[in-house]
Amino acid sequence: MTDLLRLALLEDIGSGDVTTLSIIPADQRASAVVFGREPFVVSGSKPFRKIFELLDPEIRIDCPFPDGERIEPNVVVFRLEGRVRALLTGERTALNFAQRLSGIATLTRKMADAIIGTGCRLLDTRKTSPLWRSLEKEAVRHGGGRNHRFGLADGILIKDNHIAATGSIRESVRRARENAPHTLRVEIEVENIDQLNEAMASGADAVLLDNFTLDMLKEAVEIAKDRVILEASGGVNLQTVRAIAETGVDFVSCGALTHSARAIDLTMEFSVTQG
Amino acid sequence: MTDLLRLALLEDIGSGDVTTLSIIPADQRASAVVFGREPFVVSGSKPFRKIFELLDPEIRIDCPFPDGERIEPNVVVFRLEGRVRALLTGERTALNFAQRLSGIATLTRKMADAIIGTGCRLLDTRKTSPLWRSLEKEAVRHGGGRNHRFGLADGILIKDNHIAATGSIRESVRRARENAPHTLRVEIEVENIDQLNEAMASGADAVLLDNFTLDMLKEAVEIAKDRVILEASGGVNLQTVRAIAETGVDFVSCGALTHSARAIDLTMEFSVTQG
Amino acid sequence: MTDLLRLALLEDIGSGDVTTLSIIPADQRASAVVFGREPFVVSGSKPFRKIFELLDPEIRIDCPFPDGERIEPNVVVFRLEGRVRALLTGERTALNFAQRLSGIATLTRKMADAIIGTGCRLLDTRKTSPLWRSLEKEAVRHGGGRNHRFGLADGILIKDNHIAATGSIRESVRRARENAPHTLRVEIEVENIDQLNEAMASGADAVLLDNFTLDMLKEAVEIAKDRVILEASGGVNLQTVRAIAETGVDFVSCGALTHSARAIDLTMEFSVTQG
Amino acid sequence: MTDLLRLALLEDIGSGDVTTLSIIPADQRASAVVFGREPFVVSGSKPFRKIFELLDPEIRIDCPFPDGERIEPNVVVFRLEGRVRALLTGERTALNFAQRLSGIATLTRKMADAIIGTGCRLLDTRKTSPLWRSLEKEAVRHGGGRNHRFGLADGILIKDNHIAATGSIRESVRRARENAPHTLRVEIEVENIDQLNEAMASGADAVLLDNFTLDMLKEAVEIAKDRVILEASGGVNLQTVRAIAETGVDFVSCGALTHSARAIDLTMEFSVTQG
Amino acid sequence: MTDLLRLALLEDIGSGDVTTLSIIPADQRASAVVFGREPFVVSGSKPFRKIFELLDPEIRIDCPFPDGERIEPNVVVFRLEGRVRALLTGERTALNFAQRLSGIATLTRKMADAIIGTGCRLLDTRKTSPLWRSLEKEAVRHGGGRNHRFGLADGILIKDNHIAATGSIRESVRRARENAPHTLRVEIEVENIDQLNEAMASGADAVLLDNFTLDMLKEAVEIAKDRVILEASGGVNLQTVRAIAETGVDFVSCGALTHSARAIDLTMEFSVTQG
Amino acid sequence: MTDLLRLALLEDIGSGDVTTLSIIPADQRASAVVFGREPFVVSGSKPFRKIFELLDPEIRIDCPFPDGERIEPNVVVFRLEGRVRALLTGERTALNFAQRLSGIATLTRKMADAIIGTGCRLLDTRKTSPLWRSLEKEAVRHGGGRNHRFGLADGILIKDNHIAATGSIRESVRRARENAPHTLRVEIEVENIDQLNEAMASGADAVLLDNFTLDMLKEAVEIAKDRVILEASGGVNLQTVRAIAETGVDFVSCGALTHSARAIDLTMEFSVTQG
Repeated sequence: MTDLLRLALLEDIGSGDVTTLSIIPADQRASAVVFGREPFVVSGSKPFRKIFELLDPEIRIDCPFPDGERIEPNVVVFRLEGRVRALLTGERTALNFAQRLSGIATLTRKMADAIIGTGCRLLDTRKTSPLWRSLEKEAVRHGGGRNHRFGLADGILIKDNHIAATGSIRESVRRARENAPHTLRVEIEVENIDQLNEAMASGADAVLLDNFTLDMLKEAVEIAKDRVILEASGGVNLQTVRAIAETGVDFVSCGALTHSARAIDLTMEFSVTQG
Repeated sequence: MTDLLRLALLEDIGSGDVTTLSIIPADQRASAVVFGREPFVVSGSKPFRKIFELLDPEIRIDCPFPDGERIEPNVVVFRLEGRVRALLTGERTALNFAQRLSGIATLTRKMADAIIGTGCRLLDTRKTSPLWRSLEKEAVRHGGGRNHRFGLADGILIKDNHIAATGSIRESVRRARENAPHTLRVEIEVENIDQLNEAMASGADAVLLDNFTLDMLKEAVEIAKDRVILEASGGVNLQTVRAIAETGVDFVSCGALTHSARAIDLTMEFSVTQG
Repeated sequence: MTDLLRLALLEDIGSGDVTTLSIIPADQRASAVVFGREPFVVSGSKPFRKIFELLDPEIRIDCPFPDGERIEPNVVVFRLEGRVRALLTGERTALNFAQRLSGIATLTRKMADAIIGTGCRLLDTRKTSPLWRSLEKEAVRHGGGRNHRFGLADGILIKDNHIAATGSIRESVRRARENAPHTLRVEIEVENIDQLNEAMASGADAVLLDNFTLDMLKEAVEIAKDRVILEASGGVNLQTVRAIAETGVDFVSCGALTHSARAIDLTMEFSVTQG
Repeated sequence: MTDLLRLALLEDIGSGDVTTLSIIPADQRASAVVFGREPFVVSGSKPFRKIFELLDPEIRIDCPFPDGERIEPNVVVFRLEGRVRALLTGERTALNFAQRLSGIATLTRKMADAIIGTGCRLLDTRKTSPLWRSLEKEAVRHGGGRNHRFGLADGILIKDNHIAATGSIRESVRRARENAPHTLRVEIEVENIDQLNEAMASGADAVLLDNFTLDMLKEAVEIAKDRVILEASGGVNLQTVRAIAETGVDFVSCGALTHSARAIDLTMEFSVTQG
Repeated sequence: MTDLLRLALLEDIGSGDVTTLSIIPADQRASAVVFGREPFVVSGSKPFRKIFELLDPEIRIDCPFPDGERIEPNVVVFRLEGRVRALLTGERTALNFAQRLSGIATLTRKMADAIIGTGCRLLDTRKTSPLWRSLEKEAVRHGGGRNHRFGLADGILIKDNHIAATGSIRESVRRARENAPHTLRVEIEVENIDQLNEAMASGADAVLLDNFTLDMLKEAVEIAKDRVILEASGGVNLQTVRAIAETGVDFVSCGALTHSARAIDLTMEFSVTQG
Repeated sequence: MTDLLRLALLEDIGSGDVTTLSIIPADQRASAVVFGREPFVVSGSKPFRKIFELLDPEIRIDCPFPDGERIEPNVVVFRLEGRVRALLTGERTALNFAQRLSGIATLTRKMADAIIGTGCRLLDTRKTSPLWRSLEKEAVRHGGGRNHRFGLADGILIKDNHIAATGSIRESVRRARENAPHTLRVEIEVENIDQLNEAMASGADAVLLDNFTLDMLKEAVEIAKDRVILEASGGVNLQTVRAIAETGVDFVSCGALTHSARAIDLTMEFSVTQG
């Protein structure tokens, strides 16, 4: 991750932070604090800290709260002390990480809270910002969610287009069983109850119920609960998630957690000793 | 950019797309189409296309509309033809780019349309997804916006914390003029009319009016229009942008264009020849 | 993989192939053939070909047999035609890949043949040459073997040291179920029948029977067959593999396939047009 | 080398060691020891150590014996202390290096011992594992062997195919003298006594006697000893090496040292403090 | 920069410093000093130091003078203490940086001194050694020069060929104003007084007077001084620079500072403790 | 090399060629020619061509003269045709290579011509621009010079500081013979006739006569000619080189060829079709 953070910093700095280099002396120091203006769940402390350390290993950064903590407005989440140049040059890139990851954790927290007590677990998807999936999936955990497979290598998920290519659910599951490592379960996406029955008959371990209505979900649970793992997806949002979870499915997955979370507005404020 | 796209693909694929490799024959072919379910402005054709080309140079991809075009629901924006394996393996990563960049272009288009006729121009900021700034700033242009500086190297923007460090607006501008290349203008952030006057007296070329009320903006325009470039920022959204633009400022800048645009829901649908 | 092959070539070439550059004219051309001096199963055509293409995209390379084919002594497996310089400079690096990967495929073929008809499948391990796991696991498939998990991300395998750390098989399986993605099965290593029973009671999906005697393996099969997946490992070689397979276990895994296969002696012979 | 080791580690870890992360607490610590089950010559301490340091700079690793030392069965060669997660995650990759490099050092030691007292020196070749030549050539030295040229840049070795291209031994040597840096000797491969005579007449500094019988080697030594450097190769193994060395050649080179050494079976055993 | 320095070191070392490794024991230590044989302005301390630190973090390096200081012949500019191997292996690469950068600083100092009191400032250009622009532009500052834009991204400079493409100075300036970020000034190259007038009428912020005679420069200053920034270029050397500066232009730019400065002859001398 | 050229281009372009992008349409095309204003020996066609191809694979580049040819003033050495954007964006970086490499070839040509008929050969050194040694050594060959070792791996050169560390010339040569690969000659630097005698007695293959007077060189030739290779260095320039060569030494080496050659002034001129 350090290499990517270094590139991210370089993306912003280019040939040099011309404003800071031209007006701030190399040895001037300052303290700074970061806080939000709304309640949020903090995430992204690691990249936030690393960005500054890459610029100047002597910067001291204090994170009073662990990632995953709920933070009130105007409460300081990060404190920094060090050379003004590094603080100013790293500010935007570091905040770009923290504001987005905290946005994901905050949205996840709201949805995870909404299904408390149902026994259902909230999952993310692969709809993440390219190159930052690891951080975004961690933010989902900070918000109380759970991770689906990381990528294409650590889980078998047979989708509608796979089924179209093989000709049937049965053939798809058979080939996966035959060719994929025995360390992986076989999950398959279905669109109705008939397909669910076929998936179970074919020996699938888990079934993704895509865009099922609440009634269909309930029927699926009656048929399949505890025989295969049931995951509901499609149309999942803060308004709908509780009812879906209450049908008895094991998991509900939601792409918006990572692709459409609103960034948290974070402010960095300096107390400078004049140079 | 190709190197980063390759890494993005690798992030998803890891040691291999185990589902596709285990159930799809190497030589099976298919066609596919991509469309949205809501009206949107398309962006991201380049990374979308490149992702598939990295997987299989023989895939054919057709983009009937140029980036920046307004697209109706269910209208095909991308057509693909080639090996099923590459189509399935690249699908998610390619869509992750297209859905986010189209989201940015769509939001920008709405805001740019809102200020048509005012003479004011809409600007983005540096609040972008790390490593994808170039694509996101391009998406802003596709939506009818204009780019602020790319990063820290190609523009001088003296912010409140810089001023705190130097002690005054005057000293900040003086140092920038003295030390920075003569090819760059000097822009400075101010918080009230007094600071605006000091900035102008110091010889700044442009002034960022941060969180000014509409009345303050109007006063600033009366004082400074055509003598320095005026940019308004803070609290800019679809509800407020027109009134801000109508005060007569030259530019209005908005971080949400890139940090909080909602992703466009894009679907890829295959027509497969069974293998 | 191309990047690694490029580095491998650079490792050999360094600042230049001083022999070839000093005595061979740039435009001299030749044909060449590659053959072995013993029967073997061919593997490594892809890196063999790619090494030469990296040196000179105009070299023509013909591979009359697909990877996985049994080849008789002195039968040509690769034919090449192109500039002498590239042929000579790439020879050693290309052969280093082909001789090692063919060695793995050949050894795997012998062991896979040894268990034909038992219903048991032969697996590789993670004991591979660093950075070439993907090629070596492919060579195992060319030899008729099957791949265990690729690495640490795409399979849960709880080993003795994991168990020591958690305190029990039960607790290990419980934590894995609780925290790992639902797309992965849980496999656990056991050293005796009691542990096998505990593993099954804990809900493991697969069990690695480590260094079990043939009698213990038979007992394990009686107890657990078709209820959990059974994998035998330890002391597996050409002499022992058939008896192990005949106990009825589902899989037998063998590290020597990749860590101790003897390289196949391959020769490249040129027919040069004098320059 | 550190960059390649990092990649090797990443190859195994991928998106994360899901077993360890899901069942081992972040702060649990353990000690561990590594030992072999057969006598061997140790090599690979450096990559072994580095792999763990890359994972966790706080791991302490003690290597009681220097590389090159002969180790008895069940004697501890490496001791480790640190976080269980890093110990488990790094185990396989670190052992993959140590087991292969110790295998090379052990085989080399046997062959070097076999020619003690003859005055002949044992050489390796360029038949190494791609990207690990530097480590493998070091393992050869640990086993008492000596290194031939590292690669194509630091030695002139004119082979049969080079000669075919230039038309003669004489012309090959002439061109090398004319065009290659004066800092390099000229070595040439010959297949019989006539070619040896021609090589000497052409002014070669060293001659590689390829697949010579013992009688031919003796004749070559009579003709050429102390006038050119003599290196024997082809058919060199533990059975034949002493007789070859006793003919009086200066060097005997053997590709099997690096391409076909059997890996040493190394075991890592933990003493864990339960978490 | 560290990555590039590492590559530079690798370029020289290749597979190993065979001289040093074969004759110097690993633990032998020495002191060394570096000095010039002519007066010069020192630059390059940072890469000089870093090269050795990359080889051996324990080497101690003392730079008694800051970069930019004038150094007399035979005065020690760098002192080193550490392992002989690292000192010998790093010597050439480290000196290659210091001798070139000091050469640039020395030439720049002479030209900057030549225009003292004129109010004109000396600028560098983009005619730098590829990949080392940042260091070379810093050397120009060490010599008392000032930097023009770093590269193509942080300044608009419309040249004769741009003008040919757009058809006119007016159109060129218009397009730049319309499309480029407002943070950049617009500078344009002109070849005569008429073009200067057109440039000013078009609203250019700065004008590059290319190959103007002294009389033309004086006329340009009369017309344009304090209305636009004036930069003179072409035929600038130690003989001509003062007269050009005295015409009253704001800047004079000179490519030879970086493309043709003569390297300073630096010597490293060791005091070794015999090993 | 392509990777480094790509980085060199990126160094100049940064986030984008803002001048060209803002004023030149994407589809406008032009022809261009490159010529010098003084006689020179051309070198650098390969990087010149590659820089443009990296920007736009469709650019056509014609090099009427091979590298190494003497070119008259105002004679076209490169012709280009393609998109104006790529031509303008690549111009400076491409010329930076061609002007420096042609400068090296031109200076080398002059010095090589100065020693024609003496039988002595002109050598370069390792005093090259970091990361571009391969190109600069090729430019030396284009100018009629010959290359010394490429770097520290492909030649043994024992210098004064090595001797100080081992204690004597004899011991230095002994260790090198004992430990270095037999494919390398042993060259040693000496400062007077006594040391030359010691070097020969120790069995050195080549001797570097450092800063010898002409009389000392003649004495060295009398003593050692045809018994060891003799290389003269120190104080070599256009005025001195012939007399040094006429002493009868085999080689004369000169660092200034690569560290202080003046760049050739090359001009690129466009013929544009207006867009």
